[in-house]
Amino acid sequence: MVKKRQILVIGHNTSGCTPEHEKIAYDVGMEVAKSGSVLICGGLGGVMTAAAHGAKDGNGLTVGIIPQNDPAMANEFCDVVIPTGMGLARDFLNALSADGVIIIGGGSGTLSETTAAYMYKKPMVAIRNLGGSVEKFIDGFIDQRENVKIVGVDTPKEAVEKILELIAA
Amino acid sequence: MVKKRQILVIGHNTSGCTPEHEKIAYDVGMEVAKSGSVLICGGLGGVMTAAAHGAKDGNGLTVGIIPQNDPAMANEFCDVVIPTGMGLARDFLNALSADGVIIIGGGSGTLSETTAAYMYKKPMVAIRNLGGSVEKFIDGFIDQRENVKIVGVDTPKEAVEKILELIAA
Amino acid sequence: MVKKRQILVIGHNTSGCTPEHEKIAYDVGMEVAKSGSVLICGGLGGVMTAAAHGAKDGNGLTVGIIPQNDPAMANEFCDVVIPTGMGLARDFLNALSADGVIIIGGGSGTLSETTAAYMYKKPMVAIRNLGGSVEKFIDGFIDQRENVKIVGVDTPKEAVEKILELIAA
Amino acid sequence: MVKKRQILVIGHNTSGCTPEHEKIAYDVGMEVAKSGSVLICGGLGGVMTAAAHGAKDGNGLTVGIIPQNDPAMANEFCDVVIPTGMGLARDFLNALSADGVIIIGGGSGTLSETTAAYMYKKPMVAIRNLGGSVEKFIDGFIDQRENVKIVGVDTPKEAVEKILELIAA
Repeated sequence: MVKKRQILVIGHNTSGCTPEHEKIAYDVGMEVAKSGSVLICGGLGGVMTAAAHGAKDGNGLTVGIIPQNDPAMANEFCDVVIPTGMGLARDFLNALSADGVIIIGGGSGTLSETTAAYMYKKPMVAIRNLGGSVEKFIDGFIDQRENVKIVGVDTPKEAVEKILELIAA
Repeated sequence: MVKKRQILVIGHNTSGCTPEHEKIAYDVGMEVAKSGSVLICGGLGGVMTAAAHGAKDGNGLTVGIIPQNDPAMANEFCDVVIPTGMGLARDFLNALSADGVIIIGGGSGTLSETTAAYMYKKPMVAIRNLGGSVEKFIDGFIDQRENVKIVGVDTPKEAVEKILELIAA
Repeated sequence: MVKKRQILVIGHNTSGCTPEHEKIAYDVGMEVAKSGSVLICGGLGGVMTAAAHGAKDGNGLTVGIIPQNDPAMANEFCDVVIPTGMGLARDFLNALSADGVIIIGGGSGTLSETTAAYMYKKPMVAIRNLGGSVEKFIDGFIDQRENVKIVGVDTPKEAVEKILELIAA
Repeated sequence: MVKKRQILVIGHNTSGCTPEHEKIAYDVGMEVAKSGSVLICGGLGGVMTAAAHGAKDGNGLTVGIIPQNDPAMANEFCDVVIPTGMGLARDFLNALSADGVIIIGGGSGTLSETTAAYMYKKPMVAIRNLGGSVEKFIDGFIDQRENVKIVGVDTPKEAVEKILELIAA
């Protein structure tokens, strides 16, 4: 098998993305690349762009899975673009493409991806104290099934170390 | 246009569904039917079965949109079955098929549908004090965009009255 | 089980649909309704509109499964609208929703639906001598697997009689 | 933009794939890699495995977009796996992910992907005289819209040269 480890990075798109979120996402992307993993993202703006930018600066491989038909809608840091033409239902493809997920703040789109990843029992870590819709669930479970805990971490480095550990477990 | 109003009812599937949830779902289904609306549901167990059962007892029309390929996987109270073959990504089709949504407790699947409905700005009501993953968001918004408030209600009758009002607005 | 038989009618959309196709589609829709079956269609123009029109005039129930997010894009003869937001990939949902398929001419979209229905082994009939992309396969198979023959028929009445027979078999 | 050119290679899966098809697919994959393009494929057996194998032997990058949820279902030559969980509707994602398509024989699945690519107006070439469901359309159009011609070619080398030319046009 030549398949590489695939890490999905999700969080605020351009709505709600602060310079702090962008800096963290860039650093997460860089660390993902350094770990030899493929960065999967939603291919659009905010955290998606910053994480892909970081991964490219770390000489990593980046994949953007976008809602639209047209690959030109993806951000400039995606090596491979999967234009799904499925609208926001592509959130499920992002989740299914992950061996593990790193969450950096984020609103309803991020919650949608997190919930999909939870249902498909993907390991997940979330950076604490960034606000957003997922924050209520950090260090806990989304429902009574306790499929998979959303493990809180404090830094980009810790996020990548922890997700690699959870994937390997 | 012959299209009827379509109301999506979501909530606990067989995991986590108590007799209380079932009773409420049945009554909601009955009220949906009495209002002349089509009941849309996820076509499987728990709240989905109970709501469809209530709607049939109220002489309504019921549609089940299921994750599987095989229509025989739907519960026995669905007049029309849409077997999507898309797995849980069908949650997005449920949301998109709704003119309005009624939420009755529910875990991660319900949260997934609620979040999809929020992103597509569908009117939503949720019955209070039933626990579940959506409870944290009742009488509030899922994110900072404030797309659409998840309006809390206390009874099946109030749920249907309120959703009809929100759809008409 | 309250589920009704579901018959998908496909063929030319507004591009390529002649008055002859429309007349046939209307008559097929009428016969589907008279048989007590639900008419499923792609919800847009041409054969889809004409078949739904015929089914409504025959007091049948009609479902339109459309590529768009917005139910208002469906034709005026759909009782129930499933707005998939998936673009043309909704062709697979049409096929999966069918207990049987009736083909009335049609171009690439119809071929896409026919091929999906073939892969999911749905009974199919096609009206002969109407041209279109599927014509090459009438009274034969799409590939060497010989999943299901596309049975040629000559009239709307024969189409519905034959598909009912194939579904019952 | 860091995005690379993405070439989809489709054809017989394990059903119907002869050693001749495999040899051609391997050579096409090798040529795709040598051209610096990313190979996109359906990630399963037959032509999909052989093309990915050739691309890896040519030091290329390979992506497999599969119907299942589980990335382990992909063949061993895919660097990146997109497990769609959508069943055969993933044929549309394959088509949408292509800047250009190369067709090597193939049955109903290949016809489904070809038709999707046609509807989304993707450049396409097909190797002649390999049989299969698409053969009827080589050097012609799928329907009266004449969206995009399926250009016949005779060798793997010609296939890749021609598709690069069509993509550049």
